Amino acid sequence: MSSPVASAPASGEDSLIARYFKPIATDPGAFNLGDDAAILKALGEDVVVTTDAVVEGVHFLSSDPPDTVARKALRVNLSDLAAKGATPAGFVLTLALRSADDAWLKPFAAALGEDAKSFGCPLLGGDTVSTPGPPMISITCFGRVPVSKMVHRRGARPGDRVVVTGTIGDATLGLDILKGGAAATALANDEAGRQALIARYRVPQPRNALARAVRDHASAAMDVSDGLAGDLTKLCAASGVSAAIHAPSIPLSKPVASLLSRGIISLEMLVSGGDDYEVLCAVPEAAFDQFSQAARKAAVNVTAIGAIIAGNAIPSFLDAQGREHALKRRSFSHF
Amino acid sequence: MSSPVASAPASGEDSLIARYFKPIATDPGAFNLGDDAAILKALGEDVVVTTDAVVEGVHFLSSDPPDTVARKALRVNLSDLAAKGATPAGFVLTLALRSADDAWLKPFAAALGEDAKSFGCPLLGGDTVSTPGPPMISITCFGRVPVSKMVHRRGARPGDRVVVTGTIGDATLGLDILKGGAAATALANDEAGRQALIARYRVPQPRNALARAVRDHASAAMDVSDGLAGDLTKLCAASGVSAAIHAPSIPLSKPVASLLSRGIISLEMLVSGGDDYEVLCAVPEAAFDQFSQAARKAAVNVTAIGAIIAGNAIPSFLDAQGREHALKRRSFSHF
Repeated sequence: MSSPVASAPASGEDSLIARYFKPIATDPGAFNLGDDAAILKALGEDVVVTTDAVVEGVHFLSSDPPDTVARKALRVNLSDLAAKGATPAGFVLTLALRSADDAWLKPFAAALGEDAKSFGCPLLGGDTVSTPGPPMISITCFGRVPVSKMVHRRGARPGDRVVVTGTIGDATLGLDILKGGAAATALANDEAGRQALIARYRVPQPRNALARAVRDHASAAMDVSDGLAGDLTKLCAASGVSAAIHAPSIPLSKPVASLLSRGIISLEMLVSGGDDYEVLCAVPEAAFDQFSQAARKAAVNVTAIGAIIAGNAIPSFLDAQGREHALKRRSFSHF
Repeated sequence: MSSPVASAPASGEDSLIARYFKPIATDPGAFNLGDDAAILKALGEDVVVTTDAVVEGVHFLSSDPPDTVARKALRVNLSDLAAKGATPAGFVLTLALRSADDAWLKPFAAALGEDAKSFGCPLLGGDTVSTPGPPMISITCFGRVPVSKMVHRRGARPGDRVVVTGTIGDATLGLDILKGGAAATALANDEAGRQALIARYRVPQPRNALARAVRDHASAAMDVSDGLAGDLTKLCAASGVSAAIHAPSIPLSKPVASLLSRGIISLEMLVSGGDDYEVLCAVPEAAFDQFSQAARKAAVNVTAIGAIIAGNAIPSFLDAQGREHALKRRSFSHF
């Protein structure tokens, strides 16, 4: 790791770290970013490790405000911790930038510090490198779970309910609006709706408040980041099961429900689009009431959208009449 | 993290991970890269976390063979662990690529797997993203130390010896040769010398074998990655001390010593150039014999190059006559 030392002749990199990142690295294990490594205390628990990167032009737009980029970079990782039932413990940051632009770095670091504080996930260290390419932020995030209590993708059993948090498809429509797609035109007179969807694309709302309930009650879980249909397919494959989803039960925000009912967007677009960052989990029938109660206490909306079934067929999405939606595309892929 | 699931319809990204990275992710905590997170067992020790990224055109050249890029990406992190006195425990990998090029990925992953095995540092997880920019590899690496035993930059005291491992300046000359600089011309008839220096640039030799000796005997340590002079300045500033270096004692490889004595390169170039990945540490006089003995057993060459002294002056580099070398440049900086 590269770190600043106040009394040394500061390089551009050191001074950048000292100005923007030292003030937000308040955890004792970060050593004020003044060493080559950080210390993470496991506190007798398992350390859960996840890593996700965001690249300009791929995961965020060059027009996205820097504070939203910072929050997104951290929150896509926090979302993984939530789905694994883990409590946030800290993160390290790799920042690849064309240049050290104060006007970008200042709001970026401030927002990152705010999120680190509000999610209880301190900055422990990092690396800042120059790149001739697009800016990229890579975060490795740590959580803690009691020994052997991480919630896996495997573990779902036939009869379990399939549950998702929040609403599905908002972020993919937010991106569509920013790109001037069909949703932008259709919502031309609904400024609040447009802004709400754009906000969902730019700043995910990871469900860390639900982590304990997931750990206590879910048989399997993952976060929905590359499309509900594709991610459910992965969870089912890992568990050796299939699923039947009642499509009308999929929770939708008001503007999205309106666009769908008007035929402007398809169900396929909603369940194959990325960036939801909701928790998808399987909850045994017997645990469902307790799970729902815990979710209410955590102030996280959860919706049962179908059931885990036996077999290894790709999960089906059924309409109100029980007919299967043909989905050509199920997820976002980089290559 | 993104992961493959064998029976799901594989995306390009999933299939890439399944083909190249699943075979080398053999640690039980990696869950065959089939989950969203990994588990790192702390085993009652402190978890040491370090992160370093390498970018094509900045840390490696587009002409560098992919196997050397993989080894460098991991080893620059292993070098931090060595200097902190930590035993490698695992790593996560973020790979940003323009495209999934098999001819590049196959040797990259194979070499990464070999290094993971030989350094006892298993691949635990990762993320693969597309980028329109240059390839970038970001690694977060974990080690373990007995509780509170990480070796810091702070801690050096007046009277301690200043020690470095290996030889200094080889890598910066290797890069100079690859760029057709003065060293390339001067070593035109020394093919073996040229190749040795290029190899030192492309594939660092982290001193993990010395970690235990560093932990047992050094008062402060860091790895030399941005130039010996600048990094020593940082160690001294963190410790609130200064240092006097006897420049003729700085260990040099044969071709480098020859270039320096012929006046083709300057001392400044050697001590301000990056990519050495040697350990720099302060060792109390009373512990020096034991430290040297432990280093011999570990088969790592160590050389005392000077002493820690009181004060907060920038460390001085003295010639055989005790005159100070004027160093305009002390380290590599990204911005």
